[in-house]
Amino acid sequence: MGGFFTGRTLADLGKALRSGEVTAQGLVAKVLESVDPDLNAFVTLDAEGAEAAAKRTDQALASGIDRGPLHGIPVAVKDIIDVAGLPTGMGSAHFDGHVAEDDAVCVTMLRNAGAVIVGKTGTQEFAFGATGDVSASGPVRNPHDRARMAGGSSSGSAVAVAAGMVPLALGTDTGGSVRIPSAFCGIAGFKPAHGSIPADGVFPLSPSLDHVGVLAASADDCWIAYRALTGPADETVPHGRVAWIEPPAADPDVVRTVRALFPDAPAEPLDFAGLREVFIAIEFSEAYDVHAERIADAPGLYQPVTLGRLEESGRMPGWRLVRALRERDRYAREIAGLLDRYDYLAMPTMPITAPELGATEVEFGPLTALLVSLTSPWNVLGLPALSVLAGTVRGLPVGAQLVTRRGAENVLFDAAARLA
Amino acid sequence: MGGFFTGRTLADLGKALRSGEVTAQGLVAKVLESVDPDLNAFVTLDAEGAEAAAKRTDQALASGIDRGPLHGIPVAVKDIIDVAGLPTGMGSAHFDGHVAEDDAVCVTMLRNAGAVIVGKTGTQEFAFGATGDVSASGPVRNPHDRARMAGGSSSGSAVAVAAGMVPLALGTDTGGSVRIPSAFCGIAGFKPAHGSIPADGVFPLSPSLDHVGVLAASADDCWIAYRALTGPADETVPHGRVAWIEPPAADPDVVRTVRALFPDAPAEPLDFAGLREVFIAIEFSEAYDVHAERIADAPGLYQPVTLGRLEESGRMPGWRLVRALRERDRYAREIAGLLDRYDYLAMPTMPITAPELGATEVEFGPLTALLVSLTSPWNVLGLPALSVLAGTVRGLPVGAQLVTRRGAENVLFDAAARLA
Repeated sequence: MGGFFTGRTLADLGKALRSGEVTAQGLVAKVLESVDPDLNAFVTLDAEGAEAAAKRTDQALASGIDRGPLHGIPVAVKDIIDVAGLPTGMGSAHFDGHVAEDDAVCVTMLRNAGAVIVGKTGTQEFAFGATGDVSASGPVRNPHDRARMAGGSSSGSAVAVAAGMVPLALGTDTGGSVRIPSAFCGIAGFKPAHGSIPADGVFPLSPSLDHVGVLAASADDCWIAYRALTGPADETVPHGRVAWIEPPAADPDVVRTVRALFPDAPAEPLDFAGLREVFIAIEFSEAYDVHAERIADAPGLYQPVTLGRLEESGRMPGWRLVRALRERDRYAREIAGLLDRYDYLAMPTMPITAPELGATEVEFGPLTALLVSLTSPWNVLGLPALSVLAGTVRGLPVGAQLVTRRGAENVLFDAAARLA
Repeated sequence: MGGFFTGRTLADLGKALRSGEVTAQGLVAKVLESVDPDLNAFVTLDAEGAEAAAKRTDQALASGIDRGPLHGIPVAVKDIIDVAGLPTGMGSAHFDGHVAEDDAVCVTMLRNAGAVIVGKTGTQEFAFGATGDVSASGPVRNPHDRARMAGGSSSGSAVAVAAGMVPLALGTDTGGSVRIPSAFCGIAGFKPAHGSIPADGVFPLSPSLDHVGVLAASADDCWIAYRALTGPADETVPHGRVAWIEPPAADPDVVRTVRALFPDAPAEPLDFAGLREVFIAIEFSEAYDVHAERIADAPGLYQPVTLGRLEESGRMPGWRLVRALRERDRYAREIAGLLDRYDYLAMPTMPITAPELGATEVEFGPLTALLVSLTSPWNVLGLPALSVLAGTVRGLPVGAQLVTRRGAENVLFDAAARLA
């Protein structure tokens, strides 16, 4: 596991950069040394661009310009997010050789905060899937067991952080794609409220569910990165009252591990099945809209699994989308009521630990549904959701997911700090 | 044609009521005498309820309570609009024997304005169709030629007015259902801006396209009724600049007749085909949502034509609805730009005159698409649209349709007054 950044927090790195113990250029070199090609986390390493950017941030710091906690920090970016001048492949043969012209807004935000983009990380093809092993760039491997899935779709971002190749990465999350690989790889992943980090310049999967998020070794580092990108918190909300949400179908060892962190939280029901209907109707309809012409023109360029899911998406009837949009409003009111009574909700991020590469079914159900079962409701509702390491089951990481209302993000990180 | 109300305006009737020349009870009697069962305009006549209500309005007027221009005026209400205590059949065997418990909001508004509800008028089954001849209550006949369609779906409301049975009727309009039968029957019909008259208590066809509207012999009387229901105009906009919108497929005699009223109006293009795609995607998706359980439980209770259209609606893919909603926003911006340059738009209401009952195809194309081709764009955009008599072609009425922006409704009525 041990890349250079394992065990080094953003605060540690910031101190070392400011004391002159390390330079941003030196950190870029550490990234390049730490990359383990067998894990397949990176699809593009931009040594030259990163070195040049690092040199500029070193010069800035030397001349007294300090852009804050991300100044000089190497960051990896998921390969569906545009970085000007770098290949942006979307994990798909459709974008083989495609080079982005401009930075996505979230990348501009990173650069403005002084971060150094070191490369692009592997993604599930078009971010449409949560296994992390369906991509034109091949499967990303879980550093805890290389025969297992990293989870997706921000697979490479999670693995690059989990294996200590970088201290921070950007990902995207439409049904759990930041939180799922974070949980499977034993790191922290934060999906902010919908729109908090703009998705302009990110290849869409389902625009009304797409979120840009951050992945780091700890919740603390996610919070630092999130705040560096979006500015100070709107409000600081006192925490305390937590409700436990019991998963409908899950590995009991996983549930037990997470539940142990919240022994006194009263259990509250959640209509996971209904929320899944809403999620699927929106995601499928919007995803096919994005891909309709590409499917007609060059179906053979998709990975067969992706094409199959897209074809299924195209058959989602409009009337189910009409119902989903109405139901979403109803659920939003219901959950707003729940979050009046509690400061945050806690549950496992994933109902299972990372399955073996290539699996489609596990003991607890078919994988496609299971993987997003506990994460996708918070995309439907656009609520801030954080995954943090809760423990291990049979040597594999297990994540706890904490959810709150928009504006109360600090509650999640305060709670995570108390768990750590 | 000659029912009692033929040639009598709301102003005439109001004067006669206030001079004591007639009473509201006397007007109810005139309605009952004027009904021509062969036209099949009414499905329910509420002689008893109307007489009681008329008596109350007569007493009110005698005691000095005057509710304005609709005080004592008999009004017919389309049979998908709830009137408390009256059968409300939706033109469907599904609602055979169903009696509404409460008044729809628009009916309450009518009553508050002093109007007397005299009965319920025939509607296309569930308002889903514009021919006026598909209904559990049988075809409504065109008073200008009883072998021809009245148009729909507010067929009975239009015929009741056109044949002088009532001076005013309420209808609903999802793709043209107020304006289509108004044009075919030679009267005026006004579909206000979306939501201007609330649709609560009206059986939904496609909620985001559904509008409640008014039908009367003249545009003047539509304006009086509309204002009596909704209050004074927000603004009074000077009129003048009119653009001509050329229909894509139409009877040239119909086009010539309407164009002659606006000889100097510059022609502006409109993407009728694109707007139709938007209309169909929204209407079909929302209509199937309304009917899904009913179709599963008792498909045999639908008229076969209605069931066929609903089944087709259920196959509308969600991704086309996603595109339609995005396109609607684009068209709304485009038409807002056009209505910055012009005060109103003019075009035929219908591209053809009333076809024979049972027709499915005419010289200018398949009827289903043709009937809503010029009216449905204004449901998609939610804009106020008025149909007024423009002339006749081979003895059949032809309507001119005038469209403007929300808030500039008076422009349409000022223009219509100058045409009359």
